Amino acid sequence: MTTLHDISTPSLVLDVTRLLANCEFMAARAKQLGVRLRPHMKTAKSADVARVATAGQFGGITVSTLAEAEYFFAHGFNDITLAVGFLPDRLPRALALVRQGAALRILTDSEAAATLIAAGAADVAPHRLGVLIEVDCGDRRGGVNPAGDELLAIARAIHGKAGVRLAGVLTHGGHSYRCSSIEEIQAVARHERDSVVHAAERLRAAGLPCETVSVGSTPTCTHAQDYAGCTEMRPGVYMLGDLDQVGLESLPASRVAATVLCSVIGVYPDQNKLIVDAGGLALSKDAGAQRHGDQIGYGLVLDIDGKPLRRIVHVEGTRTGSVTKPVDAWVFAASQEHGQITAADPLPFEKLKVGTRLRILPNHICMTAAAHPGFYVVEGGSEVVAQWGRINGWGNW
Amino acid sequence: MTTLHDISTPSLVLDVTRLLANCEFMAARAKQLGVRLRPHMKTAKSADVARVATAGQFGGITVSTLAEAEYFFAHGFNDITLAVGFLPDRLPRALALVRQGAALRILTDSEAAATLIAAGAADVAPHRLGVLIEVDCGDRRGGVNPAGDELLAIARAIHGKAGVRLAGVLTHGGHSYRCSSIEEIQAVARHERDSVVHAAERLRAAGLPCETVSVGSTPTCTHAQDYAGCTEMRPGVYMLGDLDQVGLESLPASRVAATVLCSVIGVYPDQNKLIVDAGGLALSKDAGAQRHGDQIGYGLVLDIDGKPLRRIVHVEGTRTGSVTKPVDAWVFAASQEHGQITAADPLPFEKLKVGTRLRILPNHICMTAAAHPGFYVVEGGSEVVAQWGRINGWGNW
Repeated sequence: MTTLHDISTPSLVLDVTRLLANCEFMAARAKQLGVRLRPHMKTAKSADVARVATAGQFGGITVSTLAEAEYFFAHGFNDITLAVGFLPDRLPRALALVRQGAALRILTDSEAAATLIAAGAADVAPHRLGVLIEVDCGDRRGGVNPAGDELLAIARAIHGKAGVRLAGVLTHGGHSYRCSSIEEIQAVARHERDSVVHAAERLRAAGLPCETVSVGSTPTCTHAQDYAGCTEMRPGVYMLGDLDQVGLESLPASRVAATVLCSVIGVYPDQNKLIVDAGGLALSKDAGAQRHGDQIGYGLVLDIDGKPLRRIVHVEGTRTGSVTKPVDAWVFAASQEHGQITAADPLPFEKLKVGTRLRILPNHICMTAAAHPGFYVVEGGSEVVAQWGRINGWGNW
Repeated sequence: MTTLHDISTPSLVLDVTRLLANCEFMAARAKQLGVRLRPHMKTAKSADVARVATAGQFGGITVSTLAEAEYFFAHGFNDITLAVGFLPDRLPRALALVRQGAALRILTDSEAAATLIAAGAADVAPHRLGVLIEVDCGDRRGGVNPAGDELLAIARAIHGKAGVRLAGVLTHGGHSYRCSSIEEIQAVARHERDSVVHAAERLRAAGLPCETVSVGSTPTCTHAQDYAGCTEMRPGVYMLGDLDQVGLESLPASRVAATVLCSVIGVYPDQNKLIVDAGGLALSKDAGAQRHGDQIGYGLVLDIDGKPLRRIVHVEGTRTGSVTKPVDAWVFAASQEHGQITAADPLPFEKLKVGTRLRILPNHICMTAAAHPGFYVVEGGSEVVAQWGRINGWGNW
């Protein structure tokens, strides 16, 4: 039996019981909202996780790179949306998947790119590459104005051309990540819905097809009150969770499924400090979650069992003369291979030696997980029941 | 002929002419300071780069992981210092290298760990694992107080034991990264020297050997005035350079050798904005260089030739009626696969289309490079003359 005591550190640990709970939660949300769930695999990047996330669903997934599209197609996923603005240079790789039977849909917000895509895809007929139009719902990253002219121009550059199919409209309420209350997130979910439904209505009014009306981000899919008119949602981070999502109230910390297992490599009681072998590379330098609190740093520190550290506090009048209290410890600094841990209270140094293993709840799991080749899978305890690989990188080496 | 116009993006580009200039610079510094140069390969993680960095030197290198030690040993590097606090759990992997003939030296700042290391290494005799004692020079990350008792306790836990060899003392002036002037960096270099030389003198006064007296960080090795009493220095980032090092005046921006090649995937003249396919994963979310200026974000933007973007400005009275002016563009936001670029002046949209290739000067190349499987090597121009692999990760999957 291999346990978390045996594997080398730093490593990425996935608690599959929490993954299942997170997937059940989001499946129920999709059902409640009346939309299909097309989970975004950019975070987990794992066919094993995708099988859990699509169980009981229609089977479609979302990805963020062509490398992911190729990997998931090779692992039996056929219905794939590549939800990052498509670069026409990449048509050969995309069309190779379409020729093999993938129901691949790509994204564009540019008439010039759409024209190149339609021209370049003509040869793939009678197969068809699906093309979704990216709509901006207020995030101000990519996407066309749903009320603007470019929406119709892109649609006309695609519709009726050989080798492509106008598949619909898509938006991402990424500004939900900048919200500070559920009410604000709900407002962003309304922006998502209103923008993309308006775009869909304009296409249909112009006699153009718009089968798919796609929305999503983990915060908006968690808190949206109404996705009427939408056909699917594409959350991704919810499967694993992280401190940023905890801060956004997408899930409680008790459901964060992915942690970084690390080992203590230095003990400094005079500084109330530990050094562990998970630094900026193993944790990422994403500091986004720090806006939710002062004592988050580059991650929160748990023991090897995923429980808070506890220290013994002497209390007169109790039976044993002492009680244990949780110690909220965090990674206050991260250099390349060093994470430095402290706490507001004294760390329980009697239990902390060079070699002690700890687990770090990460700030932003999309960034953290990408440094690791895969997940060591546990079922609540410390036994490693499986190793699940990931598709990192861009497949271009 | 393959050029930067042909390879897939995002990719890491290494200009070997700049690498050579950076290596020549640091070799001259080591000579001037009278110490050996043991380049730290944690940044480049490439045997090809290591061959350039050790050319004309004694051949020793520094690494930050056992995976790097194994990789570089397999590529012909024998004299290797693993300069991160050693975890006794890892002895089997380290001793396997020693048994194969590696002159491997590890680092500790803990008497308890030193005792475990000496006990665990006994079987490797008559081979010996070198052990360096980590000294704190004011960085307050790892290391013992050079004036404290633990220094001698660790030395005595190692000295005279079978299978280990007390190799000396080592420090890292990491607080140089927090400096805001060359004078402050020079003061940190004095801290490095004074601390480690004092520790060496104490060991020798106690009748203990101290062959190696090792210092270094790129800022201190660049600016140190005196390393008398030290035997070697271990800078690493200098080979590639980044915006943080430019801000610290370790090198000019014209010598930054590694850039991220990316493609424009969205063009938004109304927002004076581009989106490229290098986001938080391809660039890292390290924001450290932002302290050197307001308009750095997640990297500075150059054209495919590594030159600043330029825009045409109409000027009455000039022969052509116009001049071109550089446009200082930067990545102001980075999500997983999206980098968003803007500039204080209007971007030259007449030259910027979906598919246009750009190069990003990264904030912190140690973090950025780790997302990429290797370097596409150029010699000043755009022809790709080689592909140099890297050893990412921890070799534990």
